[in-house]
Amino acid sequence: MLVRDPQVCRSINEEHHNCKYFPQHELPKNVIATTDAKAALLGADFCFHAVPVQFSSSFLEEIANYVDPGLPFISLSKGLELNTLRTMSQIIPKALKNPRQPYVVLSGPSFALELMNKLPTALVVASKDQKIANSVQQLMASKNLRINTSSDVTGVEIAGALKNVLAIAAGIVEGLNLGNNSMAALVSQGCSEIRWLATKMGAKSTTLTGLSGTGDVMLTCFVSLSRNRTVGVRLGSGEKLDDILSSMNQVAEGVATAGAVIALAQKYNVKMPVLTAVARIIDNELTPTKAVFELMNLPQVEEV
Amino acid sequence: MLVRDPQVCRSINEEHHNCKYFPQHELPKNVIATTDAKAALLGADFCFHAVPVQFSSSFLEEIANYVDPGLPFISLSKGLELNTLRTMSQIIPKALKNPRQPYVVLSGPSFALELMNKLPTALVVASKDQKIANSVQQLMASKNLRINTSSDVTGVEIAGALKNVLAIAAGIVEGLNLGNNSMAALVSQGCSEIRWLATKMGAKSTTLTGLSGTGDVMLTCFVSLSRNRTVGVRLGSGEKLDDILSSMNQVAEGVATAGAVIALAQKYNVKMPVLTAVARIIDNELTPTKAVFELMNLPQVEEV
Repeated sequence: MLVRDPQVCRSINEEHHNCKYFPQHELPKNVIATTDAKAALLGADFCFHAVPVQFSSSFLEEIANYVDPGLPFISLSKGLELNTLRTMSQIIPKALKNPRQPYVVLSGPSFALELMNKLPTALVVASKDQKIANSVQQLMASKNLRINTSSDVTGVEIAGALKNVLAIAAGIVEGLNLGNNSMAALVSQGCSEIRWLATKMGAKSTTLTGLSGTGDVMLTCFVSLSRNRTVGVRLGSGEKLDDILSSMNQVAEGVATAGAVIALAQKYNVKMPVLTAVARIIDNELTPTKAVFELMNLPQVEEV
Repeated sequence: MLVRDPQVCRSINEEHHNCKYFPQHELPKNVIATTDAKAALLGADFCFHAVPVQFSSSFLEEIANYVDPGLPFISLSKGLELNTLRTMSQIIPKALKNPRQPYVVLSGPSFALELMNKLPTALVVASKDQKIANSVQQLMASKNLRINTSSDVTGVEIAGALKNVLAIAAGIVEGLNLGNNSMAALVSQGCSEIRWLATKMGAKSTTLTGLSGTGDVMLTCFVSLSRNRTVGVRLGSGEKLDDILSSMNQVAEGVATAGAVIALAQKYNVKMPVLTAVARIIDNELTPTKAVFELMNLPQVEEV
């Protein structure tokens, strides 16, 4: 396990606990941490990549020399790179200068704490190479963890990125105390918008309605107290974005991804009233209350 | 407003409150109740039908003589008639002996209490006759209530009926304390099963992923303390169905509808592991714990 912080490294190797994340959870004794990328990658059969999207390019460029061109990357990072609008399946081969680096995206509704407590969980691995998807399925599936495979990398990645923007919207509805009817209407509209965009980008509709699409959205919007949802709740309660962000010690990925939503909606010519409203609220072009008024006053149309 | 109970009738007319349901809520003064079907139906422009599905046929046959053949019925009842597997759009014309009785189904994520408190809500009206759908939209839409129209009566009705079965499944997962990852996986799988069945019955896929499909499922499975979900929680906690039902003073529509699920799955040749598991648990052929074990051990497949 490659880590940056020497203190985290020491806590894993000496105490079998990660002192920073879930410090109460005991790690298996055969998990060995290092701060040396070369050592971590030497002879690896698989690589789980969990660096946040916005930092992945520079990180991967640094370690590219130690990466075997046949090493399968299993990406856990969700989001779109600012400005380039790239997802991890595009960022990894570009940063490693290897268009054929084997790639799998892992996604689906999963709180880490429940996984650690061995509660039943179901996830999706998607790859353009069915063989690699199958080998990751074999690697990870267990009594408590179902792994479905998919060939739809675009669908899984776009759902994983945009659900964080929708989580901000769900938080806003909660912060405004609009009730559960509104929440369900907003989230199902948001799911449709993500599906419209993703299918225009080449995704399969069934990916967006499956585990890594609607399934993950349900968890993130209805249950989660994620950073993204928290940003939304505080926006809905009237706080300013700058104040919210400066008080948080971690990145809320959805804030960065929201910036990409308007560009994507234009590029693919898709109407996304809910998701673009989040982007405009974050850009301070719209207040949450005004956004709700606008959404309620859209033309009442036939369902599509 | 046609009611059966003279006491309810009196409370509405004299105190502008319904003494039985939401007795705290003040009704508009121009709502007038009667126990006389003929008086209620005389000169009506629209009829909101809210009699539970299992009792609708006999009720409608009784009042058929007072129903104008051009009176549009707006159905609020969700479910499938036991044995016949009919939905309200089939029950009404048959019971009234008028295949052309104008018909609209109204559905979508809506807790009554939030509607009464004028919190923003969005619903769907579906009719084979676009004109009638539009006129009901005009009748009902307001600042706080969005009404989308649809031509997909089958999709809206099947989603409305089967979501109650899925709510029982969600309750079981909660009763077994399986966590939120399981809940999201189960509910998204259940949404897919409802979509597979409904599209085979002629529904449009987008109806099932819309407000009256996924939207209503989210509310019912993640938020609601509905009768159906409560039955599931108690089943998951190990109580017997007979004990649960005998302690409830109202019908849990999902229990009746579950009985229809196995028949529908066979008739339309659709695999529905989650929804048929609920039916088997209710029929005492399967324990909740065994059902979870079976679902986790299904072949791990490519997503469809």
